[in-house]
Amino acid sequence: MIAYERPVRFEDVDAARIVFFGRYLFYAHEAMEHFFAGLEGGYPRLILVRGVGLPAVDVNVQFSAPVRYGEVLSVETTTAHLGNKSAKLRYRMRRVSDGVVVAEVLHTVVTTDLAAMRSIPMPADVRVIFEAHLEPALG
Amino acid sequence: MIAYERPVRFEDVDAARIVFFGRYLFYAHEAMEHFFAGLEGGYPRLILVRGVGLPAVDVNVQFSAPVRYGEVLSVETTTAHLGNKSAKLRYRMRRVSDGVVVAEVLHTVVTTDLAAMRSIPMPADVRVIFEAHLEPALG
Amino acid sequence: MIAYERPVRFEDVDAARIVFFGRYLFYAHEAMEHFFAGLEGGYPRLILVRGVGLPAVDVNVQFSAPVRYGEVLSVETTTAHLGNKSAKLRYRMRRVSDGVVVAEVLHTVVTTDLAAMRSIPMPADVRVIFEAHLEPALG
Amino acid sequence: MIAYERPVRFEDVDAARIVFFGRYLFYAHEAMEHFFAGLEGGYPRLILVRGVGLPAVDVNVQFSAPVRYGEVLSVETTTAHLGNKSAKLRYRMRRVSDGVVVAEVLHTVVTTDLAAMRSIPMPADVRVIFEAHLEPALG
Repeated sequence: MIAYERPVRFEDVDAARIVFFGRYLFYAHEAMEHFFAGLEGGYPRLILVRGVGLPAVDVNVQFSAPVRYGEVLSVETTTAHLGNKSAKLRYRMRRVSDGVVVAEVLHTVVTTDLAAMRSIPMPADVRVIFEAHLEPALG
Repeated sequence: MIAYERPVRFEDVDAARIVFFGRYLFYAHEAMEHFFAGLEGGYPRLILVRGVGLPAVDVNVQFSAPVRYGEVLSVETTTAHLGNKSAKLRYRMRRVSDGVVVAEVLHTVVTTDLAAMRSIPMPADVRVIFEAHLEPALG
Repeated sequence: MIAYERPVRFEDVDAARIVFFGRYLFYAHEAMEHFFAGLEGGYPRLILVRGVGLPAVDVNVQFSAPVRYGEVLSVETTTAHLGNKSAKLRYRMRRVSDGVVVAEVLHTVVTTDLAAMRSIPMPADVRVIFEAHLEPALG
Repeated sequence: MIAYERPVRFEDVDAARIVFFGRYLFYAHEAMEHFFAGLEGGYPRLILVRGVGLPAVDVNVQFSAPVRYGEVLSVETTTAHLGNKSAKLRYRMRRVSDGVVVAEVLHTVVTTDLAAMRSIPMPADVRVIFEAHLEPALG
């Protein structure tokens, strides 16, 4: 598990005064960039130099408590599933003030040649990071 | 079904040159505001004057094709399920150029007193709109 | 002058419940894309096929009234100045409900080869649009 | 001067592959929140509990170099001018990799009662922070 802290920003809330529901996927993506910080050149080099990306094929978000301006989230990222060309990331988001889980995101990504927009076998260094944070199998 | 057309904006794409995955929930919310345009004063009056909102409790997005700058999406909104205090909206997003479905969003919302942040029975005028666009039951 | 109408979106406001100050530049850019709708293939083709863009070198925004969720803006775009490789766009933003000017943006752009990131003489079809909406000279 | 480091995010760039011009004001606002971190409860408490905000009345941005995904900015914030109810913040934004200034933002704000949307004398603790980072007068 890799944790990433992120304050809610002034402009992250909406007219209902809580964090806009779409914003959680931005938090998730930031946490994913942080998750891959150990790649040489980080996620930017993967995208810009190697031309490899991790587009989403499926995302699920469960919202369990509203979040307001002034709060700080801790996003805990793990690998929920690891395949040949795909992986499922789990982001558990907690309020730092009280530890309450406010949202959980499941994010299935496919390693992709961005020029051809075609799936490719997962690069070894990407796999190493997914493996290092794989959730223990149940049972 | 209510359709809502939305051009992809210059700043909607990311460093992989496709629409950022979190952006689809912004498109979905715009389509929802459009869906509720028939309320007196629209969605803004519901939020700001009546203090009632529709926070999400669950969202699922399936991405089936990347979308690029210059494309226009048509978002078709229907009610996939209708309960006492909750409803599930479905947004089917198509590229206008070729009709291909690029994403489908399922969005479960709960009618909520925004001051108390507590669920409330669905207001009658909100229910009328959900009912008018309810998907036919299967089987 | 070309006018562009834009409702304030649910997520355009900030924790002070007014449209976030940075958001006005997004409105301005949308109005600029609309301003250039008459180009063959619009602004997207200019960017993606011809590799020509209009990066900003200077922007000024004067804010004269706060804007809230539920309001609709009308953005009136004119050419305040036209040079060989640059132009200054003016966006006068009014609330549709009462006609009050809420903000004025001045936006100096330079016609640029995006691959080389170097200024280039303004393409003729781009110039035609700027000229068509040039403000009358004073005096 | 207070410095704030901020990586460019995956979704901060636009279809021209450089940071979207409106995004710089988001960076500036983040730097401003950081600038006011020394207030009791920070900027969030000022806004949410005391009902005092700093809406912009004028903003100017000069862009001197494009910024790409993968770069990190350092935003240096100072007080360029201090009045009774207003202040002008200066944000000098540098690329961390080479120290080059990529943009400079001047941001005039007015201390405002957010409920009444009326200017008020600057609270003493807000003034203390502005004063501590006032630029030396030119002589």
